[in-house]
Amino acid sequence: MVKVLFLILFALFGQYSNNAMPGGTTIFQDVHLMTLVGMGFIMVFLRRYGLAALSINLLLTSHAIQWALIVRGFFSHEFANIGRFAISILDLITADFVAITVLITMGAVLGKLTPVQYMVMSAIEVPIAVAVEHVILRYLKVIDIGRSMVIHCFGAYFGLAVAKVINKKEMIAHQHEGSSYNSNIFALIGTLFLWAFFPSFNSALAIPEDSRHRAILNTYLALCSSTICTFLISQLLDHEHKYRFSMIHISNSVLAGGIAIGTVANIILEPFYALLIGCLGALVSVLGNHYIRPIGVRVFGLHDTRGVGSIHGLPGILAGILGFIFTAVYEPTRYGTGNVTHIYPAMNSNDEGREIFVQAGYQLAALAIVLVVSITGGAVTGLILRLNCFNRIHEKEFYSDGEFIEPPEDYDFTTRIISKIDHIELTEHTALNKESSTSVVGPSNP
Amino acid sequence: MVKVLFLILFALFGQYSNNAMPGGTTIFQDVHLMTLVGMGFIMVFLRRYGLAALSINLLLTSHAIQWALIVRGFFSHEFANIGRFAISILDLITADFVAITVLITMGAVLGKLTPVQYMVMSAIEVPIAVAVEHVILRYLKVIDIGRSMVIHCFGAYFGLAVAKVINKKEMIAHQHEGSSYNSNIFALIGTLFLWAFFPSFNSALAIPEDSRHRAILNTYLALCSSTICTFLISQLLDHEHKYRFSMIHISNSVLAGGIAIGTVANIILEPFYALLIGCLGALVSVLGNHYIRPIGVRVFGLHDTRGVGSIHGLPGILAGILGFIFTAVYEPTRYGTGNVTHIYPAMNSNDEGREIFVQAGYQLAALAIVLVVSITGGAVTGLILRLNCFNRIHEKEFYSDGEFIEPPEDYDFTTRIISKIDHIELTEHTALNKESSTSVVGPSNP
Amino acid sequence: MVKVLFLILFALFGQYSNNAMPGGTTIFQDVHLMTLVGMGFIMVFLRRYGLAALSINLLLTSHAIQWALIVRGFFSHEFANIGRFAISILDLITADFVAITVLITMGAVLGKLTPVQYMVMSAIEVPIAVAVEHVILRYLKVIDIGRSMVIHCFGAYFGLAVAKVINKKEMIAHQHEGSSYNSNIFALIGTLFLWAFFPSFNSALAIPEDSRHRAILNTYLALCSSTICTFLISQLLDHEHKYRFSMIHISNSVLAGGIAIGTVANIILEPFYALLIGCLGALVSVLGNHYIRPIGVRVFGLHDTRGVGSIHGLPGILAGILGFIFTAVYEPTRYGTGNVTHIYPAMNSNDEGREIFVQAGYQLAALAIVLVVSITGGAVTGLILRLNCFNRIHEKEFYSDGEFIEPPEDYDFTTRIISKIDHIELTEHTALNKESSTSVVGPSNP
Repeated sequence: MVKVLFLILFALFGQYSNNAMPGGTTIFQDVHLMTLVGMGFIMVFLRRYGLAALSINLLLTSHAIQWALIVRGFFSHEFANIGRFAISILDLITADFVAITVLITMGAVLGKLTPVQYMVMSAIEVPIAVAVEHVILRYLKVIDIGRSMVIHCFGAYFGLAVAKVINKKEMIAHQHEGSSYNSNIFALIGTLFLWAFFPSFNSALAIPEDSRHRAILNTYLALCSSTICTFLISQLLDHEHKYRFSMIHISNSVLAGGIAIGTVANIILEPFYALLIGCLGALVSVLGNHYIRPIGVRVFGLHDTRGVGSIHGLPGILAGILGFIFTAVYEPTRYGTGNVTHIYPAMNSNDEGREIFVQAGYQLAALAIVLVVSITGGAVTGLILRLNCFNRIHEKEFYSDGEFIEPPEDYDFTTRIISKIDHIELTEHTALNKESSTSVVGPSNP
Repeated sequence: MVKVLFLILFALFGQYSNNAMPGGTTIFQDVHLMTLVGMGFIMVFLRRYGLAALSINLLLTSHAIQWALIVRGFFSHEFANIGRFAISILDLITADFVAITVLITMGAVLGKLTPVQYMVMSAIEVPIAVAVEHVILRYLKVIDIGRSMVIHCFGAYFGLAVAKVINKKEMIAHQHEGSSYNSNIFALIGTLFLWAFFPSFNSALAIPEDSRHRAILNTYLALCSSTICTFLISQLLDHEHKYRFSMIHISNSVLAGGIAIGTVANIILEPFYALLIGCLGALVSVLGNHYIRPIGVRVFGLHDTRGVGSIHGLPGILAGILGFIFTAVYEPTRYGTGNVTHIYPAMNSNDEGREIFVQAGYQLAALAIVLVVSITGGAVTGLILRLNCFNRIHEKEFYSDGEFIEPPEDYDFTTRIISKIDHIELTEHTALNKESSTSVVGPSNP
Repeated sequence: MVKVLFLILFALFGQYSNNAMPGGTTIFQDVHLMTLVGMGFIMVFLRRYGLAALSINLLLTSHAIQWALIVRGFFSHEFANIGRFAISILDLITADFVAITVLITMGAVLGKLTPVQYMVMSAIEVPIAVAVEHVILRYLKVIDIGRSMVIHCFGAYFGLAVAKVINKKEMIAHQHEGSSYNSNIFALIGTLFLWAFFPSFNSALAIPEDSRHRAILNTYLALCSSTICTFLISQLLDHEHKYRFSMIHISNSVLAGGIAIGTVANIILEPFYALLIGCLGALVSVLGNHYIRPIGVRVFGLHDTRGVGSIHGLPGILAGILGFIFTAVYEPTRYGTGNVTHIYPAMNSNDEGREIFVQAGYQLAALAIVLVVSITGGAVTGLILRLNCFNRIHEKEFYSDGEFIEPPEDYDFTTRIISKIDHIELTEHTALNKESSTSVVGPSNP
């Protein structure tokens, strides 16, 4: 049905752009790998939900990309002028960006919705996200080069609001919610791809070349910094004071530097600030995950499966605040002549000729808009998802893909049972005695 | 031995091209990742054959690339003129294409041959594939920009023919043929890489820039569309009517859109057609896999381990037919002046000055040639592989890598035994009683 | 602490380069994926150390990159002139190179050090590696385009020396040192990424275009060749004469061709030599691993967890010797006019105007310097790591990440216990009898 609608919309309004974008292909592939492989595998940390996480990630990506192309097309100049919109490779990049927003939201409700519910969520979220982006970047002419506010922050708090509204007490402390050794390794595939391509992500839309160059370098250094800080802080927070690392911190918070620097990645001129912002990003991400997230569950019944509130949300807010600060202390002369028009187009005298403090105010207003709209939108979406017309997941099957995926032969063994094995007391004595008479499994050739 | 032959052939005839290809490196890396990571991991779905699938994939890739460079070299102008052939980065891309053809063929006989037999198969298939490509694209001047006919269709039906000829009844319903939870996740690594780089694959050889641009956009939209359709159709086909997704569909048929649009990826001007073709691709791929493949096994004894007949073959045939249709309705004026020479060189008045319907006929003839040659070639190859001079896999060890790979310590456990565990009835009662006296394993520190 | 030092150093001395490097982004991303994904996953072969290997790989990469940027900055012209150093994308590539050196070293002591000890090791190794590279490439004007001597050879023998000094008898034949089926598949992810991007790695710093072009083609062919040879030789060395492949050879030695050709990748003009060098690389790598490595353990107490001495070290020495040979037989006229300045700058008459045999001598001297400095530096580093001020790993926990990583629920099961399961005799008889009364695990819903 949705598919048919897409077909009709594209048939009526879609056309390809005549402008090729020679240099854009590489960045497009980088961003696309982040969406599919990075965002996909980072959600495989649940031991019973790996196949579903990857499958639904792929489904939502395909859905959100098409829907974003259409919605963005309706907002475009071409559509206003000639009644059709054009699609270029640049549009594929921004469509991937919208898909990433939806995938961040998905993290908060991972394992709680059916595929149809995820599709409905995506169908509602995409136009809101595109509209917010359009208002903030086009009308308010706010700077957010790596889209930390409109992607990370928006996606995270939209997801938190959905999660709050659809919450049931059975979702909390559920037996299936946990990782396994291999699921943690799979999650690291996601982490490493996001890490490696984050410089491409933050610089994808930066022009001209020197702006892009700065965005790459700043993101890279911020990531290095947040990685080291994450390890350091994670060690200090070990529950048993053994100075061990927590995999949830390592696979997620190492990326906080890239998010925190996103808004100002092309503005910062000093490596020092990039490193400092990386540290701050890791700090809010790890501490948020360790202290604020459990409070959310306990006090507000706000369960966030992947912890996106801390992992994407807090560094996203930090990015917004940094956008305000760096705008407030902006010195155009340091960027060489002419660059002011590229970095803050609204400050150009041909445009509005905004003062610095006005632009800084707009930056802060943008952050407020993102927070208000994402939380409101998420709450409304959550209410819609609670309507009786949708199938829901059986309570025993939260965080488990058995209801959506035809299970492989070893499903129960490798996903459910395995996690119970550590409750069995294995004494050396028993083991030795029983060795020959115990059968773990059936015969290999029955 | 083969190695020494390669050395001699390269020594006698090989030289490097003087023409660098500045822009080609990125596409080359994309295609190369598809070959190694994409085609490799998509074959890890068998729970006992993962290491073999990846290892033999790497071996066959290395072998097919070298052999393809040599064979293609012998077909080249340089060789005809000066007795030596040149190798450029463009040749590496086309060599990777030939390797992908061989790897598709490998899918049909996955788990049924020894490494030596795979090498022999590759040694025979490479020259046939190169010759067919040469005849179709150079002599007949047929259009197949993403090589859906000469790679996907050829590779699949070559493999089916080999599989038919070498078939033994023990290959069907074998106990080792099955997936595990982790092997399905590994297979999705392959799927995601193939998905992400398919636009590069289909556009790798498209020139000029606007043609390449269209190939990227069309492939991307076709993939989005086939992904959504695959999920939809897979749900409807669930054997137990629980509307669950089947991993074999998800990890394979989502790519059908990219294959189906391959032949015409640079010709289509409307997003609508790309989406429609994606749907059709998913339809033939999923339905073929669900209905036709079991008939093949039951009626013809035609066992196709990875299902390449449906996954690559049918969308490849569809691509060939679409090539015919889009050629028949071709309107040169819509592409701007001059483009006609790029899209259908044979219709250029400096060349043959072919009429549209003649070109369309050639397109259909090319599809027929691919089918006839691939099936004949595969059958002959199968007969050769049945010669007594080759070692064969022991019947109990089909779909298992224990005969080729020195096993890791936990081999039996994680591959063979695990799949039997679900036959054991585990009652809560028994479990509680036995908890302290049961030993799963030996002591951890003997 | 280290972090604060980095902040201060960058604050005082770091600034961004004004020169963008338009074409460099792609290569930078390729090299970066090799560092994070390739070097990371190739170390996941130990079944109990996967999470630690990936985590510490990420930590060391972030640390080594920053430290390398600072140290290289201090060696730069800008720093000498204006007291600050500039950072461009080219510097990120070379910083990644230094990180790879450290990660190779890490392979030799994998599972033997605490994270703090690894950081200290990296802190000492980075300046030595940068200094050696600076002396060899800048002062001695030696050719090493793919950095086989200064990265692979240096990293390996530095690691061997550290391993020798910190060796304890408990490190040898430890019960935790072994792979599992899945850990071998994860390691192949690393292998495939390193394979796919090795041409980018060896050509990253090659200019002009034709030199880069040759480096790509030669590396690619050498890899194909070493892959086939590795499979061939591995089969012949099977301990039980069953002609099976060993995963340690396949996941490591297939890359030997890329290392062996590194020094001369842009010099070789004939495909034949590339293939031959690939064979030789595989030969020294596999034979070294099979024969020399056990002698090292038995005779010298020299335990090398990943076998980097054979996998990176011997092909690195081979590369150095090939650098000598190809320099000695160098014929400038074959490269066209003007190229001599690019390939051997010191032979340019505007420069030193070196004779061929002098340059060849310098090449050999460089290899000697690498070996002497790496072994000495590693030994000193090992002594420092044995100081009492550092925590050490408990002897029972070598090759295990339980002391650093908060374990997932199934930790004991999937890592420690699994490797014992094959000692249990499972008879068909027993299994059938016990099927209903045996419990592998606790109840699924207690």
